[in-house]
Amino acid sequence: MTVHFTPLTAATPVSNAAKLDEYVAARDFDKPTLVIDLDRVSTQFQALKAGLGRADIHYAVKANPASAIIARLVDLGSHFDAASKAEIALCLAKGARPENISFGNTIKRSSDIAWAWGEGIKVFAADAAEELEKIAINAPGASVYIRLIVEVSEADWPLSRKFGCDRDTALRLLDMAVSLGLKPVGFSFHVGSQTRRADMWTPTLDAVSQIWQTAIDAGHDLSMLNIGGGFPAFYGEEIQAPTDYAAEVIAMVEARFPNVETLMAEPGRGMVAEAGVIVAEVMLVSRKSERDLHRWVYLDIGRFSGLAETEGEAIRYPFQTARDSEPMGPCILAGPTCDSADILYEKRPVSFPLSLKSGDRVLIRNTGAYTSTYSSVCFNGFPPLDVVVI
Amino acid sequence: MTVHFTPLTAATPVSNAAKLDEYVAARDFDKPTLVIDLDRVSTQFQALKAGLGRADIHYAVKANPASAIIARLVDLGSHFDAASKAEIALCLAKGARPENISFGNTIKRSSDIAWAWGEGIKVFAADAAEELEKIAINAPGASVYIRLIVEVSEADWPLSRKFGCDRDTALRLLDMAVSLGLKPVGFSFHVGSQTRRADMWTPTLDAVSQIWQTAIDAGHDLSMLNIGGGFPAFYGEEIQAPTDYAAEVIAMVEARFPNVETLMAEPGRGMVAEAGVIVAEVMLVSRKSERDLHRWVYLDIGRFSGLAETEGEAIRYPFQTARDSEPMGPCILAGPTCDSADILYEKRPVSFPLSLKSGDRVLIRNTGAYTSTYSSVCFNGFPPLDVVVI
Repeated sequence: MTVHFTPLTAATPVSNAAKLDEYVAARDFDKPTLVIDLDRVSTQFQALKAGLGRADIHYAVKANPASAIIARLVDLGSHFDAASKAEIALCLAKGARPENISFGNTIKRSSDIAWAWGEGIKVFAADAAEELEKIAINAPGASVYIRLIVEVSEADWPLSRKFGCDRDTALRLLDMAVSLGLKPVGFSFHVGSQTRRADMWTPTLDAVSQIWQTAIDAGHDLSMLNIGGGFPAFYGEEIQAPTDYAAEVIAMVEARFPNVETLMAEPGRGMVAEAGVIVAEVMLVSRKSERDLHRWVYLDIGRFSGLAETEGEAIRYPFQTARDSEPMGPCILAGPTCDSADILYEKRPVSFPLSLKSGDRVLIRNTGAYTSTYSSVCFNGFPPLDVVVI
Repeated sequence: MTVHFTPLTAATPVSNAAKLDEYVAARDFDKPTLVIDLDRVSTQFQALKAGLGRADIHYAVKANPASAIIARLVDLGSHFDAASKAEIALCLAKGARPENISFGNTIKRSSDIAWAWGEGIKVFAADAAEELEKIAINAPGASVYIRLIVEVSEADWPLSRKFGCDRDTALRLLDMAVSLGLKPVGFSFHVGSQTRRADMWTPTLDAVSQIWQTAIDAGHDLSMLNIGGGFPAFYGEEIQAPTDYAAEVIAMVEARFPNVETLMAEPGRGMVAEAGVIVAEVMLVSRKSERDLHRWVYLDIGRFSGLAETEGEAIRYPFQTARDSEPMGPCILAGPTCDSADILYEKRPVSFPLSLKSGDRVLIRNTGAYTSTYSSVCFNGFPPLDVVVI
């Protein structure tokens, strides 16, 4: 099948999608499929690396753990941030060296800590006394960094208070780590997912640097700062280009933490989102009532088969169809399951061609991050999002 | 391992959990596991059937498609409501007869309609003109029922406007079905998930019966009413016992639809929820700050590994630990992933023993419905919810 899509408008530019476009245009897909352009991942790694300078990139594996992506990033010299035993095992299997993998989840099973330590993982995150106790028992002498809560975020998707601890707790945890025989090497934080411009990091960096200085003043020999993620992907709203963005962030970091020995950054979304496109299909276009302003459009992919980040309409993906040069109109967009919560965009409807109909292909752009792994195993009998790496 | 759990209090009664309790108390689990008591499913089927009388039970497969549950329900004489090709294939593989399976999703892939028709499925749902066209082409002459929108719900979890159409649209669709060569046999509706008492069905049944009468007056020979689901499970708030509930609903239906030939009911949650318990484990107990009122408790299961229905804190599962006789206090409860949205209960904290700690077992009661299939394939590298049927 060859479907010719009209060029994207200025409102929805997509960078370097030619290889993806060519691949999907030449093929039929019988279920929703995420296609990843591995070379686009490489390009993005190099672009981020050019800006991040001496900071080590620890790719946030959870963003997309496709084997080929991990293998490619190993080849490029990336380090890795792992959320679980399975993610560590994956990185090791693809050739990552254990000293280049951090166990960044602050919530770890004791037996997984022991396993990781046995595999040579040296650096663990913590934000609570009980977690330090678990690490001290299962990875005696390990390096730990304390995750701070940051409540000054300007991100599109600010994080909850689920992770991190406040200043006083963090200082106490540093002391406790020492007394438990661990090596407290520094702090981590997270500016919030999808922080679109580098200058939005300012209040967070200011807050963290004050805590850092307080810890130094208290006699702690801190050597490592993990600046976390937040590196944005393009979803329709303007973002700063990756090299500029990363360079500006690092300049702000160096100004506030001039003597820090090791810098870590954990791009995930910012590394892989733009390297992926989901090929989906319209299942149904309907109206509930003649009085309704909007059509309902149902796709073969929804919140439970890969588009979990549409919850609360937080992430708004760019869409593209072969009819985008025709007259457009607003739609409520929903997934194919019998679940009434499986609605993608309703409060802010999306624009689709008025002629859109069942069977039409819909491309969902920049969906390389936080899609495939969210897929349910078989909710309503629908298969997980298929992944093809080219 | 044998863990002796304290008896549940009057506030959290669980019916007939002895077999589950005995099974889980005698075993270790190294990952979150849903244990299903198949005999409890049978008991519930018989209890519902005793109340539903002449109505056919079409088990909503999506609630829990475990093979053993489907096989048991086939043995018991249940019919099935399927949301997809895979669910139909499962029912057929377990011995269900095709004439006892309805294809109840209003959003169907054309090729799946054709496949189902070829397999002998005779009854299809629709709520839109385009869906009728798809059915007419791919299942010529099939029976169809039109799903109505009901906007008078008193359910704990009212459904969105994703499914169904209004009266005028429904009447037009009946006409259209005839002109397409289909057999429009009746209507379906849904009172909303977890409708706790039968009397809460009154406004919905009143509204549907008016539309039914209008259709009859317009000359449509309707023979089938599908009353959908809504049959509740016990999650801590009082619910009516299943036989009483079903009998009262059917009495209300018979009073309003005296001559209807075929009645269908689609219990899902109400059939299997109380037959399941999830065995989970505490990963971490922490405080973000000394000033915080509540502890944070992190389990090894969260919104992305089976507890999706905690979204918006809609469904509140009963929890049980071995320390429940000790002093209790409020907690914010969260899952194990690095996702800040992976929080189960925060607005209304849950009560847990003050002595709760990492490694403690937590039983999550009445979790047999809408859990396992929602599990992500491997978000953050965590495995899907394991399922054991006993």
